[in-house]
Amino acid sequence: MNMQRTAQELAALCGAELSGDPERVVRGTSSLESAGPEHVSFFGHTRYGKELAQTRAGVLVVPRALQAPGVDATLLRCERPNEAFARIFEAFGRLPARPGPAVHPTAIVGRDVELGEGVSIGAYCVLGDGARLGAHAVLHPHVVVGARARVGEHSELRPFVTLYDGVSIGARCLVHSGAVIGADGFGFDPIVGRAGLERWDKVPHGGTVEIGDEVEIGANSCVDRARFEVTRVGDGAKLDNLVHVAHNVQVGRNVLLIAQVGIAGSTRIGDGAVLAGQVGVNTHIEIGAGARVAPGAKVWNSIEGGRDYGGYWAMPRGEWLRNQAHMNKLSALAERVRALEKQLEALAAHPRGAQSGNAADGGSSPQQEPA
Amino acid sequence: MNMQRTAQELAALCGAELSGDPERVVRGTSSLESAGPEHVSFFGHTRYGKELAQTRAGVLVVPRALQAPGVDATLLRCERPNEAFARIFEAFGRLPARPGPAVHPTAIVGRDVELGEGVSIGAYCVLGDGARLGAHAVLHPHVVVGARARVGEHSELRPFVTLYDGVSIGARCLVHSGAVIGADGFGFDPIVGRAGLERWDKVPHGGTVEIGDEVEIGANSCVDRARFEVTRVGDGAKLDNLVHVAHNVQVGRNVLLIAQVGIAGSTRIGDGAVLAGQVGVNTHIEIGAGARVAPGAKVWNSIEGGRDYGGYWAMPRGEWLRNQAHMNKLSALAERVRALEKQLEALAAHPRGAQSGNAADGGSSPQQEPA
Amino acid sequence: MNMQRTAQELAALCGAELSGDPERVVRGTSSLESAGPEHVSFFGHTRYGKELAQTRAGVLVVPRALQAPGVDATLLRCERPNEAFARIFEAFGRLPARPGPAVHPTAIVGRDVELGEGVSIGAYCVLGDGARLGAHAVLHPHVVVGARARVGEHSELRPFVTLYDGVSIGARCLVHSGAVIGADGFGFDPIVGRAGLERWDKVPHGGTVEIGDEVEIGANSCVDRARFEVTRVGDGAKLDNLVHVAHNVQVGRNVLLIAQVGIAGSTRIGDGAVLAGQVGVNTHIEIGAGARVAPGAKVWNSIEGGRDYGGYWAMPRGEWLRNQAHMNKLSALAERVRALEKQLEALAAHPRGAQSGNAADGGSSPQQEPA
Repeated sequence: MNMQRTAQELAALCGAELSGDPERVVRGTSSLESAGPEHVSFFGHTRYGKELAQTRAGVLVVPRALQAPGVDATLLRCERPNEAFARIFEAFGRLPARPGPAVHPTAIVGRDVELGEGVSIGAYCVLGDGARLGAHAVLHPHVVVGARARVGEHSELRPFVTLYDGVSIGARCLVHSGAVIGADGFGFDPIVGRAGLERWDKVPHGGTVEIGDEVEIGANSCVDRARFEVTRVGDGAKLDNLVHVAHNVQVGRNVLLIAQVGIAGSTRIGDGAVLAGQVGVNTHIEIGAGARVAPGAKVWNSIEGGRDYGGYWAMPRGEWLRNQAHMNKLSALAERVRALEKQLEALAAHPRGAQSGNAADGGSSPQQEPA
Repeated sequence: MNMQRTAQELAALCGAELSGDPERVVRGTSSLESAGPEHVSFFGHTRYGKELAQTRAGVLVVPRALQAPGVDATLLRCERPNEAFARIFEAFGRLPARPGPAVHPTAIVGRDVELGEGVSIGAYCVLGDGARLGAHAVLHPHVVVGARARVGEHSELRPFVTLYDGVSIGARCLVHSGAVIGADGFGFDPIVGRAGLERWDKVPHGGTVEIGDEVEIGANSCVDRARFEVTRVGDGAKLDNLVHVAHNVQVGRNVLLIAQVGIAGSTRIGDGAVLAGQVGVNTHIEIGAGARVAPGAKVWNSIEGGRDYGGYWAMPRGEWLRNQAHMNKLSALAERVRALEKQLEALAAHPRGAQSGNAADGGSSPQQEPA
Repeated sequence: MNMQRTAQELAALCGAELSGDPERVVRGTSSLESAGPEHVSFFGHTRYGKELAQTRAGVLVVPRALQAPGVDATLLRCERPNEAFARIFEAFGRLPARPGPAVHPTAIVGRDVELGEGVSIGAYCVLGDGARLGAHAVLHPHVVVGARARVGEHSELRPFVTLYDGVSIGARCLVHSGAVIGADGFGFDPIVGRAGLERWDKVPHGGTVEIGDEVEIGANSCVDRARFEVTRVGDGAKLDNLVHVAHNVQVGRNVLLIAQVGIAGSTRIGDGAVLAGQVGVNTHIEIGAGARVAPGAKVWNSIEGGRDYGGYWAMPRGEWLRNQAHMNKLSALAERVRALEKQLEALAAHPRGAQSGNAADGGSSPQQEPA
């Protein structure tokens, strides 16, 4: 797209305080590293200080209080730089336009459905009886909202999202394509006869799912309904793609569940906990508030909040890394044990004078172990 | 919903034998722990004996033979308590009503499709030529049934399920949203030229998938078609969400595959095996009937049936846990080896009399290792 | 289906050079092991030499140069045996027919959409404004193509695929059901107040996804859009089911990502690398070209190309397997260390003469450790 904007126009767009040349013209967005004078870029974190010092960007969105003495770019100082940059992406056509308020003629809307002001319902959506959409909620095409399910105001559901009957999504949520909210919890009782297991008896799940406000749910993630009560995802929690949250789980406020995390049934994840990609969490345990779990860790027992954890048998991070370091050279440790055994055998055979010969073969010296 | 039911009404609903006050009135369902006198609750397992003793529930669904001397509630004794409680959930509007028999006018039905008596086909379903639905099968809105695919009687497919051409689902199955049955197996032959790998040559997959009777498949799970013959999921098997079953795999009867399990190609899972969440199973191996594999385990080699397994290199459970316990304090073991080496070095340097000094520093004593 | 074909007809169908009886009649396809004289089967790899020697198949598709002295079947020698066999599967109705060129009347096509020659757009597809489909592209029913998204010529998208706005799919790709291309990258900045974490601030993602030519993407896999620039999947790469590719990742040419692999943000996967099922790869690292990573491995640090790796802390395969072998009998190693400690304690207590007693109890002898 052939677009250009002055720094001043962009400042107006995102409510920024401008410092530098207001007439600078930019034609697109770019990262700090790749930007040229024709780009507007973004600096949020001190950890990118080096990139900031070297950037060639013409215009920069930065936190309001930033001191950036050596930077040549025109600065747009913002209270909420991420939100500001979303406006700038939009100005350059880089974010999808939010569809206007309308109900597409192909949408099928059940009886007793309540639609808030300004809702947008895309093509081929299906809303069951008694569903409720809050004001300005957006259903992209091909969303299924079950009977009596509820979507809060300003929430946005991408194509092929399924809300099963009766589940509830809070306000200002974003649910990506293919997410499934409210499928049956996985519960089966064994029916055992004389010859052993005969079949699995389905445990009916009459509970529901409640997703709080400002929650984001990634593509193809699944949150199952509770057996009697509520599987809950707290306000401000963010779930990445392909995450599994089982029945009765309680996910606290502001929890991050990164891609492919799996939480087994009835477990509680405390507020602000961060579970990295592919973490697995056992059933009926508790992750303390603010705990941070490294990628791929498997959490077997409840862990306290406010600390870092990792490992196939998750433990405090420092302990895990010490153990892991030894695991990573375990064959060397085993060789050292073998060498000790030989030395002691030699000692037993020749109780005196044999040791120096053993020491001379060097096999037991940790200085010589493989790196 | 403003509902109330007497114990007697509920007993009639689920064919229970009532013991206690038939006039007790309840207004909803709840778990044993949370129930009050206005609730009907459920007791199935002796492992919830404590909750049973303490429950305040007014009415309880229980197994027919239960003795519950101290319990005040009116008891509804049932042959199949889970099925009974499903009826009770329905009575309180907690389970989705099964849609009535009808073909929605927006459904697109190909040529030579056979529809059994009483089928229900929801909005925007698409059925390919020659598809067959058994009597009373239910397709919720937005289900795609490929050409010549088959759905058995009383089976139910939730929104956004895809059945690829020619696959077959048995009777009384439940397939949750987003499941994909019959996508191509993942097979590619390397085409290697002078400069190494040039491209991957797709191996065509002309086989199919057959899902048995009474199978449940979780949301967004995938079962791939076989290369020549059949990827099979046996009668009574239950798959949780986000499970992957590769081409040619044979899943036995009554197998449980819990969330995010992955089974590599051509592997056989024996009847009644239970694979917990995030388990991975290697290609071309066999899991014996009734084997139970702990969460997150990786199964590299065939394992015998009837036993429990676990670990990153799956082995019998007891062995795994013993090894795991040592892994969890491996740095302590390494320190003990270092202490032994020092002692032996001292012995070698001073063959007599030095040992007591080493022993006194205590470093090698297992009693002092970190917990 | 009641079908039969002569060897000669099949040879014509797939451009093969026939050797043997051209009048042999077959009625279906089968694997080498299961085939009878009435089947056409396939031999591609020397690793199936034994099955080849024993097969009873009537007709065999084989590589052009194959010598197969003892084989009785009529041979169809082909330059590209896999492609040839795809034609044969089609002849027996075992592969889905490609839908003919047409735009289904229920498809909703936005403004300024460009449709190449011979495209096929299935029922209930939705194409946003400015979308482009190359010649002979196939959208099966229920595909959503976002505004300005692009699908290359001859590419095929299965039901319930979502292309978010602006993403691009190359030519001759195959995308299976439920795959989601271009959902927001998972990026959130912590907003910390006096009482700790207050909320996560969404980092807007204005970049896109570019999928190369001849890429296959499995069912329910997800490739997220970049923050500023492009998440890229190179030409000829193949992704299996339930794979997660995070924002800014660069997947090289001819990479294989097997089922349930997860790649964290900004990581680079070199050309021709093969990541087996359930592998996890850390953020901001690099997998060298042609690296091969064993199932379930977790890759924490960059690894060099051209080698094999494995393990929970991925390392070169040989090293991993040596370490793993010791991990698998770690409790035995710990017992040996305990035995050494006892011997040394005895030595310390009785500096002379005690050793032989210790040696006699055998506890420290590695010959006696559990297998």
